[in-house]
Amino acid sequence: MSTAALLRPRVAADLPARLARSAAVTGAGHHLRTQDVTSWLAERARAHRFTVRRVPLDRLEQWSFAPGTGDLVHRSGRFFAVRGLAARVDEGPYGSWQQPVIHQPEVGILGILAKEFDGVLHFLMQAKMEPGNPNLIQLSPTVQATRSNYQRVHAGSSVKYLEHFTGAPPHLVLADSLQSEHGAWFYRKANRNMLVEAADTEVPCGPDHIWLTLGQLGELLRLDNLVNMDARTVLGCLPLPETEAGALHSDLELLSWFTAERARHDVDVRLMPLADVEGWTRDADGIRRPDGRFFKVTGVAVEAGNREVTGWSQPLIEPCGTGVAAFLFRRLGGVPHLLVHARVEAGYLNRVELAPTVQCAPRDWEPVPAADRPPFLTAVLRAAEQGGAPYWPASTPAPYACERGGRHRAAAPRTCASSRSRTMIG
Amino acid sequence: MSTAALLRPRVAADLPARLARSAAVTGAGHHLRTQDVTSWLAERARAHRFTVRRVPLDRLEQWSFAPGTGDLVHRSGRFFAVRGLAARVDEGPYGSWQQPVIHQPEVGILGILAKEFDGVLHFLMQAKMEPGNPNLIQLSPTVQATRSNYQRVHAGSSVKYLEHFTGAPPHLVLADSLQSEHGAWFYRKANRNMLVEAADTEVPCGPDHIWLTLGQLGELLRLDNLVNMDARTVLGCLPLPETEAGALHSDLELLSWFTAERARHDVDVRLMPLADVEGWTRDADGIRRPDGRFFKVTGVAVEAGNREVTGWSQPLIEPCGTGVAAFLFRRLGGVPHLLVHARVEAGYLNRVELAPTVQCAPRDWEPVPAADRPPFLTAVLRAAEQGGAPYWPASTPAPYACERGGRHRAAAPRTCASSRSRTMIG
Repeated sequence: MSTAALLRPRVAADLPARLARSAAVTGAGHHLRTQDVTSWLAERARAHRFTVRRVPLDRLEQWSFAPGTGDLVHRSGRFFAVRGLAARVDEGPYGSWQQPVIHQPEVGILGILAKEFDGVLHFLMQAKMEPGNPNLIQLSPTVQATRSNYQRVHAGSSVKYLEHFTGAPPHLVLADSLQSEHGAWFYRKANRNMLVEAADTEVPCGPDHIWLTLGQLGELLRLDNLVNMDARTVLGCLPLPETEAGALHSDLELLSWFTAERARHDVDVRLMPLADVEGWTRDADGIRRPDGRFFKVTGVAVEAGNREVTGWSQPLIEPCGTGVAAFLFRRLGGVPHLLVHARVEAGYLNRVELAPTVQCAPRDWEPVPAADRPPFLTAVLRAAEQGGAPYWPASTPAPYACERGGRHRAAAPRTCASSRSRTMIG
Repeated sequence: MSTAALLRPRVAADLPARLARSAAVTGAGHHLRTQDVTSWLAERARAHRFTVRRVPLDRLEQWSFAPGTGDLVHRSGRFFAVRGLAARVDEGPYGSWQQPVIHQPEVGILGILAKEFDGVLHFLMQAKMEPGNPNLIQLSPTVQATRSNYQRVHAGSSVKYLEHFTGAPPHLVLADSLQSEHGAWFYRKANRNMLVEAADTEVPCGPDHIWLTLGQLGELLRLDNLVNMDARTVLGCLPLPETEAGALHSDLELLSWFTAERARHDVDVRLMPLADVEGWTRDADGIRRPDGRFFKVTGVAVEAGNREVTGWSQPLIEPCGTGVAAFLFRRLGGVPHLLVHARVEAGYLNRVELAPTVQCAPRDWEPVPAADRPPFLTAVLRAAEQGGAPYWPASTPAPYACERGGRHRAAAPRTCASSRSRTMIG
């Protein structure tokens, strides 16, 4: 055969347009109206018996504190373990600390299946119960499973639709990248974020799944606690329509800034025995700090009708206080820019990742001198109080001068450029 | 001021053309003829007094085996340490092992300065002595320094030209990315690879530096032991002229394959006390394996006239036997492709990196059953014996079928696609 026939275009030029078409379809899709999704979720919740009750860590079924280390581990040795972590960083008010951390040295799959109906891409979303959800059930990816899950360590039923992702024909993969978990709670944990098209195959839609357009998902993102975090991180991996040719900084300047941030930091992070972690206490209430800051490690017993297993117990990370994740936004020369943060978290695989302008639980920072609090936190909280008052009055010049070593960059989506974070927050 | 004035092009469209112009200039550059470089290097070697002699590890000045761990550390606590590493991987004949490893939790700078002479980009290369070089002195980047070096922990003289990289104006950076060291010898060590243009400033050329075009460097790369590894890894970061629109696999398929490789592997790597490492012995000759495989940790005392300090002692990793690094190459549909390997090394930050088709020391694999040896090793060695005989006769079809989980992909430079590694080697 001719080898010329082997070649294919390196870039699928039509994908952004197909996604844009799906994003334009709001109100109703092939399957149901957007306004009916919440009642569908409520109906799925009723269709199953979900109960979650708190259980002391030392009474979690199949979990125990390992002799010696005191790490909280599952009898199978799989799923995850709660261990200790010792961190030393070169910046901020907390130079070094110890904490509990979730250790799960395996990569999970967060996969959304896509299919065209009437020429419009729809995405197969799942009504999934998770014990940590305030409302228990939320819209999640088609498949959301750790390797322990889909290898059925729990000897439960198989993960629905998994084969579409583990066996995806290469040309039907629309997005596929590793993205890390919260670096403050997980030790070097990453998930494979996948979007796969089911082009030629019929996909039976189970009772706990629905097809939605990108536009409908956009509408649902405006509602509280409805589209879960795993679904949002997969959707965040979709390619954008052709981006602007101009930005505050060139792509190379952005890469160079980010490389410098990654190279600059001295971060020493090590796992340690949970039993030896200083500054945390363990009692019937869980593992927590006497000052009540950051998070607690608590336990729950779960009963669910539609999960791979019908009941289980597990430890949970329970944040203390509500967090804030906020981007500062403005148009520069007509081009939308976001102010992104090169953020250091102890659990990140690569020390530093791009983060929102502000990402923290304000309560944790109250004891800290104002000057040491996260940049822009005050501004963001003030804007929130005022129902989203503009941070930059249209009259003020945009931040543009590049401060060497600045931690923030004003960035077009998928593009970054510089701002004077230190001077802007004063 | 108008914010529109803030915007700049996201991509510097002219850089690939400027690099191509420099690559086209061979034989002689602004500074000297290519054929005179070797004699210039020899002259630099004569201009300084270089001596390197072996020293037992326990007699290295400023170095000692730490009590308890037995790690080999510098008195300053900086530079690097030789520690132990325990690895468990899920593939290959060596499921788990222990070894000495170099631990240096700081990012070094490998920087090459570029400047136009007569409209042609030239690159400032350094005649640098390193104790591990068979010929002691080689062409290295303008700046090649760990942070301990350029922060002058050794209290020596400052690193020449460093300010061009630590203080580079963003718009003069031509390339800037983190690239890892050998994962078999270094524990999560990365260097910042930089190419910076000195556009508006005069750059005095010191006696140990010369300006060469990309074309001249290409000529010198054909000579043994002349362009050192650090220079080659920086040059490898330069952008290519516009690549082909077609390849064996699309860019997204390549990314998806690589993501799958990164997600698939269970790799558990931990630092451990050097004193506890099993399978290695320590004697006057250094730290080595009784079977003489892989590498030794040995010590040297160095005297040099033109380094930041005039003399020092240090441990060295000394490979046992000569390694092979080889790409299989062929044109597919007229487009050049390389066969790349998704390689797992214990010391990589991200478990897996793209590697040559074959990268190993053949001697280390002699005791191993042929079926367990690295794919394509036999083919590459045979081709080498035959002075580079083609591995794929023009008549045979190219490898193109995608074997799920295959470890190799036929790849255009900066592009990858699939081949049937297992079946091709049989």
